[in-house]
Amino acid sequence: MKKEKMKGSQGKLRVISLGGLQEIGKNMTVFEYGEDIVVIDAGLGFPDDEMLGVDLVIPDISYLVKNAHKIRGVLITHGHEDHIGAVPYLLQQIDVPIYGTRLSLGIIEGKLDENPPPFDPELYTVEAGDVINLGVFKAEFIHVNHSIADACAISLKTPVGTVFHTGDFKLDVSPIDGQIMDLTRIGEIGKAGVTLMLCESTNAERAGFTASERTVGSSLERIFAQYEDRRLIITTFSSNVHRVQQIINASHNHGRKVAVLGRSMVNVIGAAAELGYMDLPDGVLIDIRDIGRYRPEDITLITTGSQGEPMSALYRIAFSEHDRVKITPNDVVVLSSSAIPGNERLVGKIINALVKNGVKVVNDSTEDVHVSGHACREEIKLMMALLKPKYLMPIHGEYRHLYANKDIGEFMGIPSENIFISEIGKVLEVDRKGARFNGSEIAGKVLVDGSGVGDIGSVVLRDRKHLSEDGLVVVVVTIDTEGRYIVSGPDIVSRGFVYVKESEELMTQAKQIAEDSLNRALSKKAVDRTQLKTVVKDDLARFIYKETKRKPMILPIIMDL
Amino acid sequence: MKKEKMKGSQGKLRVISLGGLQEIGKNMTVFEYGEDIVVIDAGLGFPDDEMLGVDLVIPDISYLVKNAHKIRGVLITHGHEDHIGAVPYLLQQIDVPIYGTRLSLGIIEGKLDENPPPFDPELYTVEAGDVINLGVFKAEFIHVNHSIADACAISLKTPVGTVFHTGDFKLDVSPIDGQIMDLTRIGEIGKAGVTLMLCESTNAERAGFTASERTVGSSLERIFAQYEDRRLIITTFSSNVHRVQQIINASHNHGRKVAVLGRSMVNVIGAAAELGYMDLPDGVLIDIRDIGRYRPEDITLITTGSQGEPMSALYRIAFSEHDRVKITPNDVVVLSSSAIPGNERLVGKIINALVKNGVKVVNDSTEDVHVSGHACREEIKLMMALLKPKYLMPIHGEYRHLYANKDIGEFMGIPSENIFISEIGKVLEVDRKGARFNGSEIAGKVLVDGSGVGDIGSVVLRDRKHLSEDGLVVVVVTIDTEGRYIVSGPDIVSRGFVYVKESEELMTQAKQIAEDSLNRALSKKAVDRTQLKTVVKDDLARFIYKETKRKPMILPIIMDL
Repeated sequence: MKKEKMKGSQGKLRVISLGGLQEIGKNMTVFEYGEDIVVIDAGLGFPDDEMLGVDLVIPDISYLVKNAHKIRGVLITHGHEDHIGAVPYLLQQIDVPIYGTRLSLGIIEGKLDENPPPFDPELYTVEAGDVINLGVFKAEFIHVNHSIADACAISLKTPVGTVFHTGDFKLDVSPIDGQIMDLTRIGEIGKAGVTLMLCESTNAERAGFTASERTVGSSLERIFAQYEDRRLIITTFSSNVHRVQQIINASHNHGRKVAVLGRSMVNVIGAAAELGYMDLPDGVLIDIRDIGRYRPEDITLITTGSQGEPMSALYRIAFSEHDRVKITPNDVVVLSSSAIPGNERLVGKIINALVKNGVKVVNDSTEDVHVSGHACREEIKLMMALLKPKYLMPIHGEYRHLYANKDIGEFMGIPSENIFISEIGKVLEVDRKGARFNGSEIAGKVLVDGSGVGDIGSVVLRDRKHLSEDGLVVVVVTIDTEGRYIVSGPDIVSRGFVYVKESEELMTQAKQIAEDSLNRALSKKAVDRTQLKTVVKDDLARFIYKETKRKPMILPIIMDL
Repeated sequence: MKKEKMKGSQGKLRVISLGGLQEIGKNMTVFEYGEDIVVIDAGLGFPDDEMLGVDLVIPDISYLVKNAHKIRGVLITHGHEDHIGAVPYLLQQIDVPIYGTRLSLGIIEGKLDENPPPFDPELYTVEAGDVINLGVFKAEFIHVNHSIADACAISLKTPVGTVFHTGDFKLDVSPIDGQIMDLTRIGEIGKAGVTLMLCESTNAERAGFTASERTVGSSLERIFAQYEDRRLIITTFSSNVHRVQQIINASHNHGRKVAVLGRSMVNVIGAAAELGYMDLPDGVLIDIRDIGRYRPEDITLITTGSQGEPMSALYRIAFSEHDRVKITPNDVVVLSSSAIPGNERLVGKIINALVKNGVKVVNDSTEDVHVSGHACREEIKLMMALLKPKYLMPIHGEYRHLYANKDIGEFMGIPSENIFISEIGKVLEVDRKGARFNGSEIAGKVLVDGSGVGDIGSVVLRDRKHLSEDGLVVVVVTIDTEGRYIVSGPDIVSRGFVYVKESEELMTQAKQIAEDSLNRALSKKAVDRTQLKTVVKDDLARFIYKETKRKPMILPIIMDL
């Protein structure tokens, strides 16, 4: 209380999401009270269809850079890319301590090795149950179930009451590691009173409960029994260590050896085993180079490529481009995963290639080989019933998901006016009197392409889109120093427009149009460079559209002698 | 028999698909016997993710052009784009008679009005039950159920026995027009003996039966009752006249007027009503300009845009860009459709925009507001049970679908060696002795972009892809007539690469690299133009990759004085 009076500017908690609202991914939320800031998660997002050539998207952290001196810590709920992927970029700009469970930090360390920050980073390992003091805040990590081990919700004690951030969660009453979500502790926190709940919304449109991870194990058992005379190749999300554990268990039970393919799968299994998240029976893992020593039916291959990624191990296997694994009609491929929206065609491409090679393909439309890691409606209701929050802010989802979460909140008795559907940058202000939106801070998408962070904006993307649709026509001409006549050219070069060898006449005509256009313009008085470019561009565009009904980018370049 | 001896080269039927195998869309199959050819369908396909800027894809019909004199007719099974969309392109090249039911020809006529052939086309209307003589062939049209009215299968009597082409079909025992698929006739044909069945494979992976179109009517009734105090905006595939009829019926029953939005929806309803496929109660349709005269709850809007198409009526409504329809929280939008794979994100974008405006959205994941038009496994089995074909050739589908169809065939007792999974161009030869693959004919994808048909190939697409990912850097330089020194430049222009204003240093350095590279090369003896380009391109590429980890297209242009 003393601290509050000393530091609190006006006794207000400000909650600002820098990502994860009205979008999928790049989850990041800022909690600010006076001179203290705590951040939960720092994730990345994937480019949408309009972001041509972009590798990934991270939150705009200008607000954090500006207020770096206030930041007491970044708390990580779990080790998925959409919650940790922006950490290396954050640490390029500011030196802040990171708190997370062992597996989360293990994965972050791997990323920092590849992209080291300009200082020695402070990484603090926590365990579920730990309480961390961070300025006026006290953060408690609470175990939840999810599709990665060691996931936590975070309960944040603030001067205006408790804020509960669910992270990503599901309720699994029969989890692989035996650790059910800590309902008891969540209930205690609820009883003590929760001012604000931030609740994930990914599956808020889906009725019922998400199935237990263990149901996948039963399906795997059936598949291993059914195909005991064939080689099994199984793909899943590499971060799902419990899924991988179940595949290894089934293999071991059926006397199979396991070889692992794909960099991220090798890394994660290595890290998870080292940190004790995985139990690897002696001798079950073999090197991929040794698979020739065993009969195919005594082998399970675990690979990356569940999203159809073109460089992944499974893709290369399916298209016969893999050095060590040749596909045969004796193989059974299990996709223990679901296609993330947007990836359906890529996954379909792999399935077609496999089927074409006579391979039996099993996926989640034919068998229960995948379960979601996110809470469906009934689980969200359960969480709300235990927490009984005064205010609700749906997070992690597109508008439709946030809205569906709001619907659940209303069903659970939270008054509509106490539910805040926010957007990135928008400030939710909470004090003893209530909660309300009040202004906004800088937030946005920073695009990463190659080593460039943020050097691509709407102009570059618009040009890429234009180039991708109809290609490019470059017109080059050299004119004399006085700007009166053509010295050389015009030359016309095109790319991505037409197959030039079969369109010689069109290109010859285009050249003539450009030349006439330039001569006409140059014969007039006082024509500047910009006007010259505009004239030739317009004339050429008109001609090309008339002839081809296409609108390539036209790029006039005028050289001086 | 006499005819066969006269005309048949070696008494062999050749079956060649020019589209629809190992791909979705552009369905087209050629049946050739001696001097006679019959073609079934002439459809278009949609570009895949790699075909940047391409509008649509049609089959390569070189084989038909070469053998135009043999073609006795093109038979149309039904009026969907993937079965008729290539007709205008076909008729640009060859004058052949087209046979189809009234609705199919009505839709084709609309297309030919927009893209008229260089002669007066011969279009012949047929009815289910009609038998047409086409050289040695006799074609019988047989009524089937599908998601468009007036769909047919085709039974082709040939000198080597009956060939049965299912077209697209489903079994609907309670169809909207009362006309169940003609199981009796199909059974009779089966009893008389079928040599070869070509069977559609779209839903061959799905178990069970496809639900009746009428189930959608029941859902619509519920929705109309539930939202009687709100305006309804319903989107579906415009060609699904029975769906549209059901929406109109429900509206009429609930005392609503119907306004239609979107060009293709207006066209199809007009054509279908005129041809008698639709029953429009007097006064139920109103002009969109008159919707202001009614209370919102007395209006149903039927719109295009079920696939999230960015120019469609529903898209413009959702993003508040529509002249006549302003969205309000009193609206309920029903997506009576499913997203075609690849369109999920576009459809999601519309849903998010609607929900954001407070609109209630109903789709096929929450209510039974859509059914497929294609046979599931049990319906395919039924068709096979009635036809008892000697040979089976799965058609219409990616490899996985064709293979699933083969599986069904084997289950139904067709020997594996009698089932032919083919590919486009591959020739299946059938005679009295048996069936076998024998060689292939030209087949492929012809890309349509603007008014250009086939002038875009792999080089243009590769360039578009390259440009879309990292943009373009043009280097222009003028050199003296002897090719010894630089007269002007080098100038560097980029598009879609970096935001130039923020990357001035990079561009200045790049210019220097190019200049050094050129001077070095020019100082050597006997450097030709191509070598000069290669040197500057390589040097610049290396520099740019080192600085940005990007690989833009580098386009060196060298001008002579």
